[in-house]
Amino acid sequence: MTPRTDRSWWGWGSDAAQLTATETTELVDRVALLLPGHDLTDHEPPDPHALAVPPPRVAPPSALADLCSSDVVDRLSHARGKAFRDVVRNLHGDVSHIPDLVVRPRTEEDVVAVLDWCTSSDLPVVPYGGGSSVVGGVEPRFDGPAVTLDLTALDRVLEVDPVSRGARIQAGAYGPALEDQLRPHDLTLRHFPQSFEFSTLGGWLATRAGGHFATLATHIDDLTESIRVVSPAGTGESRRLPGSGAGPSPDRMFLGSEGTLGVITEAWMRLQQRPRWQRTATVAFGSYDAAVSATRAVAQSGLHPANCRLLDPAEALINAGTAVDGGLLILAFESADHPVDAWLERALELVADHGGTVLATRDRAAPVQGEDASRSWRSAFIRMPYQRDALARRSMVVETFETACTWDAFPSFHAAVTDAARRAIAEVCGGQGIVTCRFTHVYPDGPAPYYGIYAGGRWGSTLAQWDEVKVAVSTAIADNGGTITHHHAVGRDHRPWYDAQRPDPFAAALRAAKSALDPAGILNPGVLV
Amino acid sequence: MTPRTDRSWWGWGSDAAQLTATETTELVDRVALLLPGHDLTDHEPPDPHALAVPPPRVAPPSALADLCSSDVVDRLSHARGKAFRDVVRNLHGDVSHIPDLVVRPRTEEDVVAVLDWCTSSDLPVVPYGGGSSVVGGVEPRFDGPAVTLDLTALDRVLEVDPVSRGARIQAGAYGPALEDQLRPHDLTLRHFPQSFEFSTLGGWLATRAGGHFATLATHIDDLTESIRVVSPAGTGESRRLPGSGAGPSPDRMFLGSEGTLGVITEAWMRLQQRPRWQRTATVAFGSYDAAVSATRAVAQSGLHPANCRLLDPAEALINAGTAVDGGLLILAFESADHPVDAWLERALELVADHGGTVLATRDRAAPVQGEDASRSWRSAFIRMPYQRDALARRSMVVETFETACTWDAFPSFHAAVTDAARRAIAEVCGGQGIVTCRFTHVYPDGPAPYYGIYAGGRWGSTLAQWDEVKVAVSTAIADNGGTITHHHAVGRDHRPWYDAQRPDPFAAALRAAKSALDPAGILNPGVLV
Repeated sequence: MTPRTDRSWWGWGSDAAQLTATETTELVDRVALLLPGHDLTDHEPPDPHALAVPPPRVAPPSALADLCSSDVVDRLSHARGKAFRDVVRNLHGDVSHIPDLVVRPRTEEDVVAVLDWCTSSDLPVVPYGGGSSVVGGVEPRFDGPAVTLDLTALDRVLEVDPVSRGARIQAGAYGPALEDQLRPHDLTLRHFPQSFEFSTLGGWLATRAGGHFATLATHIDDLTESIRVVSPAGTGESRRLPGSGAGPSPDRMFLGSEGTLGVITEAWMRLQQRPRWQRTATVAFGSYDAAVSATRAVAQSGLHPANCRLLDPAEALINAGTAVDGGLLILAFESADHPVDAWLERALELVADHGGTVLATRDRAAPVQGEDASRSWRSAFIRMPYQRDALARRSMVVETFETACTWDAFPSFHAAVTDAARRAIAEVCGGQGIVTCRFTHVYPDGPAPYYGIYAGGRWGSTLAQWDEVKVAVSTAIADNGGTITHHHAVGRDHRPWYDAQRPDPFAAALRAAKSALDPAGILNPGVLV
Repeated sequence: MTPRTDRSWWGWGSDAAQLTATETTELVDRVALLLPGHDLTDHEPPDPHALAVPPPRVAPPSALADLCSSDVVDRLSHARGKAFRDVVRNLHGDVSHIPDLVVRPRTEEDVVAVLDWCTSSDLPVVPYGGGSSVVGGVEPRFDGPAVTLDLTALDRVLEVDPVSRGARIQAGAYGPALEDQLRPHDLTLRHFPQSFEFSTLGGWLATRAGGHFATLATHIDDLTESIRVVSPAGTGESRRLPGSGAGPSPDRMFLGSEGTLGVITEAWMRLQQRPRWQRTATVAFGSYDAAVSATRAVAQSGLHPANCRLLDPAEALINAGTAVDGGLLILAFESADHPVDAWLERALELVADHGGTVLATRDRAAPVQGEDASRSWRSAFIRMPYQRDALARRSMVVETFETACTWDAFPSFHAAVTDAARRAIAEVCGGQGIVTCRFTHVYPDGPAPYYGIYAGGRWGSTLAQWDEVKVAVSTAIADNGGTITHHHAVGRDHRPWYDAQRPDPFAAALRAAKSALDPAGILNPGVLV
């Protein structure tokens, strides 16, 4: 296994998939219309070889030398995740906090050896999957040397159990590689975060990633049967069980531990058969309140749609190319076992009760009826991060933040958060900006709203501008009963709000667990604990 | 609030609900048929006032004296749970390990004061809800004094949110009291363990209780929005959130902590509307393998039945009064939102594909079609523990154990476990005995089998006889990939197998968490850690 060479060192995804000239022109023209007067000069990424990257401050023991890379571009590409603030710093050639070495274990024994070395040398180590963190989760943002533990060489599906529908999968497998290995068994994990192509199973587990399903199995947590972890204090794995009540769940302690308690090396995951039936509908609403009520009715109906994504008018216009007054709901049901007509029909009755109008329906086995905004939205979804990077190069402040709250809180929560965002944009970016909202996941007791911000910045200041907006919106989220993250994790960027949100007894328990498993404190310092 | 006076001090449930003379005669006649020659002499429980219960070894500080009871019957009723081994010891007048005081806090401040007193006095404290533990979870099975913290005075629903369908409920509320307070809001928690009448919300949370739903929300964990905990090191509560990815789940650390990390004082729980549509079917199979395959197909179908309980022929005969060769599957769908015909119809197609024959169907709104074994089974279910006690009085060894495993493992697992049970019964009880199995919950990746044992014992030896059988079956469970408990918790009785099952890194984390939250080690010593 050789490291992937298609990845962009400075921005999202792969170099080959960056926006085409035509896509760029269309995007820039659209922004020029929305934000007239904004300076759209393109600032190209620097040549990484020309950057003053300091030489490594540590050398590996000879037994591990083979696994280590000190290549400058390799180190630069591992220095941070793919948040707007990461991309902007890369575009400006910021070389602070670059890992000294990138270590690529080929076996679990290698992982043990690396942790032993780092523990005995008091050397911080940052576990790293696809590097798609948008919360500073993989950045050695501290003084002194650091190594990054890139797990992508551990990329195999080791075992498949077709009867129970499970597979034992190494943590470093990227989404597509993992699905490719499951396909011959006619099984799928069906976990499709936006980062699917560029993130790994281990990263999903360590960050409690949100995936394909809008209801029920919203997080990777729910697809996890057992986890194997290497910690500095020892290695262990939970038993493969469909359910258990034997003490607090061991897996739930490592799910979301963000590389601070141990390194996840493999997991048994729950799989599905590929869906044979799929029905999708897009529904327009005249008022946002009605759209939210309809979405709540569906979320509380027990129908469990696979997709239940409510786009507000701005999101619908920008990313689905559809003009609506109140909101656009994308609903989908899917099954490998049975037609889902009864499910969709009842859901459409519910949305009709709340004033929704069906714009289009799609059946996997039949032609599209009506104008299919759900497909436009899906294509846009995959391209969004590339567009974000193109706009970051053009002095825009373009970023997202996401959360969850209860339904009763949502109206005032949403008003407070969008108000905070608009005020911050007005103050920091001089008034030019757009705030969008969609629900990525919905629960019987509340939605997971996902916000987008598009504002005109000033080249050289967009990082500081975003950071100010981020503080304002995060504080509004915290003050109005939301979670600082529904599925992007805590990393280093969310620490202040996470620390306030986390109950004190749990904080004490987590600190103690960290000390027990990582006595030298080498694992991803600055994250969570 | 005065303590419940209807409870049996020595056996299950309430004194008033013990078997009637007719029920007893019927039961005893049935057993006489199944186990001819067994000595069915009735051994009545002793007069608790005549037992040599030692006087309390501790006195409370005067500020807490009001909350404390040293009444002998009160102390005896709190001395152990309601497992067979507890009932037998009570029947024999065993007075070892009786708590010195029963303390009934009326407010959370009282709980804090009790923990402060116990911490400063190095006095073990056993948190106690309804006392229905069947795993030694509430028994001060250690030397030296102990107090039992009975939380049942904290029994109110404090707040209801009808929009998000949630309620803030005090931990000491019994099932019926909690449902009574939710009924005016037309909402229900719909968590119905067999112990429903005699167990509390806090007990359910602390032990990860299994409830009404055979699929999806199988455990109370899934109905939990946030938890408030008082630990010796401080008090805290998680935020009310429908979903979150902010670090490892704080609630999942306390769910299943069995009173070792803190005392749960209240929780926000997810509620439902009462179902308006319910359809039930009972399906007979000619072979057990076919019945298991059919059940797996339903569990993997995405239809999410509320009930999907597979009874083996012995269980079907004894508890549902139905003779089948292979198995009896009780299937039910329910909804507050929509008719569930499409769901049941597809499930019946699946079971027909595996050779199932529908014996009866029931529609909430229509008369029963066919012989309704599902209703017989449900009535039997509620009466089972009372029957168990009547048989315990008659020198029978009657107990259950439960687990979960993956579908691929189930055939060999089931063979090994039933074989171990039968061998142990033959060796220990001289060959007279029955082993039954039902699935209480099913998952896409495996079932949760629940076993019953009925064997003839010798008066004075039934405790030792059961303990030997328990070791044999627990070892078979552990050796064949099951969990030592799916929803009965670990307590003191499951420790050896739990310790072996728990991954080492998690064990280290849990011990460290315990030390941080309960530095004096006063909380439920001997459980989990």
